[in-house]
Amino acid sequence: MDWKTEIAAAKFRIAPHLRRTPVATVSGFGLDHPVEVKLEHTQHTGSFKPRGAFNTLLSQEVPKAGLVAASGGNHGAAVAYAAAKLGHRARIYVPEMAGPAKIALIRDQGADLHVVEGAYSNALDAAREYEAETGAMQIHAYDAPATVVGQGTCMAEWEDQGLEADTVLIAVGGGGLIAGALAWLDGRRKVVAVEPETCAALSAARKAGKPVDVEVSGVAANALGARRIGSICLDHAQAQDVTAVTVSDDAITAAQHALWKDARQLVEPAGATALAALTSGAYRPEKDERIAILVCGGNLPSDPLSAD
Amino acid sequence: MDWKTEIAAAKFRIAPHLRRTPVATVSGFGLDHPVEVKLEHTQHTGSFKPRGAFNTLLSQEVPKAGLVAASGGNHGAAVAYAAAKLGHRARIYVPEMAGPAKIALIRDQGADLHVVEGAYSNALDAAREYEAETGAMQIHAYDAPATVVGQGTCMAEWEDQGLEADTVLIAVGGGGLIAGALAWLDGRRKVVAVEPETCAALSAARKAGKPVDVEVSGVAANALGARRIGSICLDHAQAQDVTAVTVSDDAITAAQHALWKDARQLVEPAGATALAALTSGAYRPEKDERIAILVCGGNLPSDPLSAD
Repeated sequence: MDWKTEIAAAKFRIAPHLRRTPVATVSGFGLDHPVEVKLEHTQHTGSFKPRGAFNTLLSQEVPKAGLVAASGGNHGAAVAYAAAKLGHRARIYVPEMAGPAKIALIRDQGADLHVVEGAYSNALDAAREYEAETGAMQIHAYDAPATVVGQGTCMAEWEDQGLEADTVLIAVGGGGLIAGALAWLDGRRKVVAVEPETCAALSAARKAGKPVDVEVSGVAANALGARRIGSICLDHAQAQDVTAVTVSDDAITAAQHALWKDARQLVEPAGATALAALTSGAYRPEKDERIAILVCGGNLPSDPLSAD
Repeated sequence: MDWKTEIAAAKFRIAPHLRRTPVATVSGFGLDHPVEVKLEHTQHTGSFKPRGAFNTLLSQEVPKAGLVAASGGNHGAAVAYAAAKLGHRARIYVPEMAGPAKIALIRDQGADLHVVEGAYSNALDAAREYEAETGAMQIHAYDAPATVVGQGTCMAEWEDQGLEADTVLIAVGGGGLIAGALAWLDGRRKVVAVEPETCAALSAARKAGKPVDVEVSGVAANALGARRIGSICLDHAQAQDVTAVTVSDDAITAAQHALWKDARQLVEPAGATALAALTSGAYRPEKDERIAILVCGGNLPSDPLSAD
């Protein structure tokens, strides 16, 4: 598969439906160097996920039974949003731990929503069952080529916007976003994978040399809590010998506060995870190494204005 | 005074200390047209105010007694921040209604902070008294040429970033930001002034033909509650016959929610006031009129992460 050509085509294909999200260079966060940021959490539905959803729907024939997806929240909202915009039915299975705000977000897109007890994998089982029964089209959250190609448009867009960094830090759950970035960059820039210590599917797979199941928990679990890394991601990560670091929940929470305090960006824990690698020292840049972080999601567990 | 040359010079002068804040084009907010936005609330200290503060400090001699400012919060934080970065003392008078988060923000910059009972004008009186006693340099929040020139760099920067709009909506308190924009644009684009119904100093002055005192109250009062429009602003507004509209507190609050819901930007009421003119219909664009809004401030009355 020629990933770069596919990503270039996807970028053109999905452009009418997606936001070109803003970029900036920020000095702050207690760091002694500026950081390029891409505010991808300002994408429709609050995360990068609509890129993969639109690319899938616009590049494949959608059956009459419509779509089905399992999601910790962000992917489900994206599939529901894309389905509604393109006139398809969508059934979304969400694990309880997605939390009320993400569940409401999906419901607001007009999807047929089913909340499943337990972790993400239970929702995935339910989605697969529905797919087998009805012939609905499954949009995998991270381990399907059309999904990865769609997510890859984020990095391609950033380069259009003048990205200068030598190194880009990206949070990893199932690995769809970073797989797209690795596929697009193809070694032209260094990519650092950042995982919560408690959702470290890529780190575990890199150690084992193959995807292995991990336990998932912690503040970012509803977005980054994939039990097993995607095989597409792992292939790219191994081929490029990608650096993977982990960060604690405390480091993620501190980075969330830093993003608010220094840049007035309020994001979910997953959205602060890449920055946490810098602010905690889990990744220490070389002198003069130019650094960028991808802010990937902004869907908090509750509406921050509801208390005002 | 050659405002445009001054603004161009200021842009160069202050660049090492300021952020080039991100811009984007956003479809959403329940509008049937896209809107260009500049996220100036991501500036240092959470508002555009450091532009004027740095320009003042870098273009004038600062006395040994240092600086003094009166502020509803954002200007005070900016003066304190700029003073600290440039090695000057700063005394800031803040009206109580600034609220605890803005007061803490100023204190965090290391300023000598004095909280004054009542409205902004009381804080201004106290600042003037201190200025007369000590010879400290007053940095006016909006009605001094160096302040207006500094704020004008925001619009100049936006044009560097490819602003396409025919019309730019800007929230008005004392009028420093819009005065700078009017001075820079000099009629090349339409500017619409947006005021809360309960802090409408510019609208009142336009009716009276001269600055008049108004009562100030409402959700945006701690940022937009100037009792009297700046004379520099009024001069520019009259010369360009600027359109001024007003919006209700409910419209401002609804626009705050829309900015969070559709673009994951959490801003203070003043920061949502320009958008409120569109979402409430107070300003209705012509067909094909390209619209931009300046998001000018993001300092909420309390830390949105403190409850998490």
